[in-house]
Amino acid sequence: MHWLRSPIWWDERMAFPPDATLTDAGEFGLISALTDVFTQGEHVLIGPGDDAAVLRVKNGHVVVSTDLMVEGRHFRREWASAEDVGHRAAAQNLSDVNAMGGRATSLTIGLAAPADLPVQWALDFARGFADECALVGASVVGGDVTRSDQLVIAVTVLGACTQAPVVRSGAEPGDVLALCGRQGWAAGGLAVLGRGFRSPRVLVEAYRRPEPPYDAGRLAAEAGATAMIDVSDGLLADAGHVAQDSGVSIDVQRAAFEVPEPLQAVGAALGADPLQFILGGGDDHALLATFPERSVPEGWSVIGSVAAPGPDGPAVTVDGAAYEGPTGWVHF
Amino acid sequence: MHWLRSPIWWDERMAFPPDATLTDAGEFGLISALTDVFTQGEHVLIGPGDDAAVLRVKNGHVVVSTDLMVEGRHFRREWASAEDVGHRAAAQNLSDVNAMGGRATSLTIGLAAPADLPVQWALDFARGFADECALVGASVVGGDVTRSDQLVIAVTVLGACTQAPVVRSGAEPGDVLALCGRQGWAAGGLAVLGRGFRSPRVLVEAYRRPEPPYDAGRLAAEAGATAMIDVSDGLLADAGHVAQDSGVSIDVQRAAFEVPEPLQAVGAALGADPLQFILGGGDDHALLATFPERSVPEGWSVIGSVAAPGPDGPAVTVDGAAYEGPTGWVHF
Repeated sequence: MHWLRSPIWWDERMAFPPDATLTDAGEFGLISALTDVFTQGEHVLIGPGDDAAVLRVKNGHVVVSTDLMVEGRHFRREWASAEDVGHRAAAQNLSDVNAMGGRATSLTIGLAAPADLPVQWALDFARGFADECALVGASVVGGDVTRSDQLVIAVTVLGACTQAPVVRSGAEPGDVLALCGRQGWAAGGLAVLGRGFRSPRVLVEAYRRPEPPYDAGRLAAEAGATAMIDVSDGLLADAGHVAQDSGVSIDVQRAAFEVPEPLQAVGAALGADPLQFILGGGDDHALLATFPERSVPEGWSVIGSVAAPGPDGPAVTVDGAAYEGPTGWVHF
Repeated sequence: MHWLRSPIWWDERMAFPPDATLTDAGEFGLISALTDVFTQGEHVLIGPGDDAAVLRVKNGHVVVSTDLMVEGRHFRREWASAEDVGHRAAAQNLSDVNAMGGRATSLTIGLAAPADLPVQWALDFARGFADECALVGASVVGGDVTRSDQLVIAVTVLGACTQAPVVRSGAEPGDVLALCGRQGWAAGGLAVLGRGFRSPRVLVEAYRRPEPPYDAGRLAAEAGATAMIDVSDGLLADAGHVAQDSGVSIDVQRAAFEVPEPLQAVGAALGADPLQFILGGGDDHALLATFPERSVPEGWSVIGSVAAPGPDGPAVTVDGAAYEGPTGWVHF
């Protein structure tokens, strides 16, 4: 780990001119400047600056997940501020722990960046990232910075559960499918940005700064969720992962969704069915889970049902039929 | 975490033509093919394929570190096979835990890759990575794959110590500086490759597949090492990190090094002092540690001494004087 290694350049940071690039700052200049942004929780026994961090762990286990964000593919600097990208990068990873029924405690950041990236961008990114982590009390404990042609952000999150983790493979015929959190708003915002618009503002903001329901994962686990996933690939695509892993079929009911007004407006403006943002969108990091019928906790909406698979195996249907629209995101 | 998510494409993997690219395989095809390469240790409670992995943790703590490797900067596909790059990527991270006096247990891999990357390259990379991890009994428990213009590999390693971790800040005046493992060989190999040569073979191989002394970290901790670091930036640069963090000065003695014959040959061929590969090289992942004088364990060579800092603060000298050659690697 080359992050936050040494205090020798500390004073130089103060002297960064406003247009300084990563080349001007140098590796250790950047690292020192970033250090200052991240505060360490009490569970951090050895924080940034050594070959590795050392964290206190309770309950004898750790939950771990990794995600990549590539500029031009997962974000655009012209569509979101550095701070927004920081919020999103953190939210995406915190949400993976949420989807196991756990809570994040610690994260590492790998930042591969062009030499002409403004130092200010990196600092604002770090600030947004730290602010999002603060929502669940997690600390950034280390990372790595290096030069690349394209901006790539690699985040690893560690966390813990207070009860058995909720996996994707536990859904049972007879369960209901339920959703918690905003869904489709970020996809609507992305569609708008892609057409060169900046409104409806509330959707653009939802894309820039998702608001995952960070407490809902643990509460769902305690309420007896049988399977859970965070909606990151798209609602139907992620329902498909649950169906496949659980060996069940899932039907989603269109009537379960009240299409919010801003999405209706975008649908009308773009000539698209606004429900497609809800069924195919993934950037809100809502939670999707299955529960025994009478166990759905407060704050969740029932949106479908679970049945034994048909003759062709596990499948996801919408109102009992195959869905023709886009179900989610394709990575290659 | 989007890695190793679903078994639906399992059979398609068998049908990859030899020249298939990541685009041909698709995200889930690639993921399924990679799954097969990684075996899971007994500590892995929930392995790849869910939102996050869950690992059993002993001793109430976890050691964590992250590193990035960027094509063209940290490796070149024409200088090393995919399997070699896998070995190096794993070794670099396993070594960070080694340098804390610990042992790695689990790793995640983020692979951002061009769409035309051959699937075979990704599989061979994974195999090399897994083989290196097997040397310490560690498992690859998850990861992420996505498309990018440039090949970027982000690895996070988790591990544990059996005693107090050895940090960089514990060196004391009166301690000796000692080294364990090959040092300078990889830098010699890299210099040779950079000139378009492929020999001396033993140096090129040392660059392609470093052999970090994976047992030495824990043994050094048990023997009472006061500070430890893995040599990844360059021997003098990394000695500098120890000096800074410990608030001491370190003197390295040229006479302590026996320059191996292949390095002498390369030095003669390139008109360079062969000692510069040893003093400035970092790709071998040797361990550098300070010990009370009578505590140096077997397998370590004393190469210098620790003293109180001079009037200008912590410094690293060679034979008592400032070193004029390159001391290590500059990242920006």
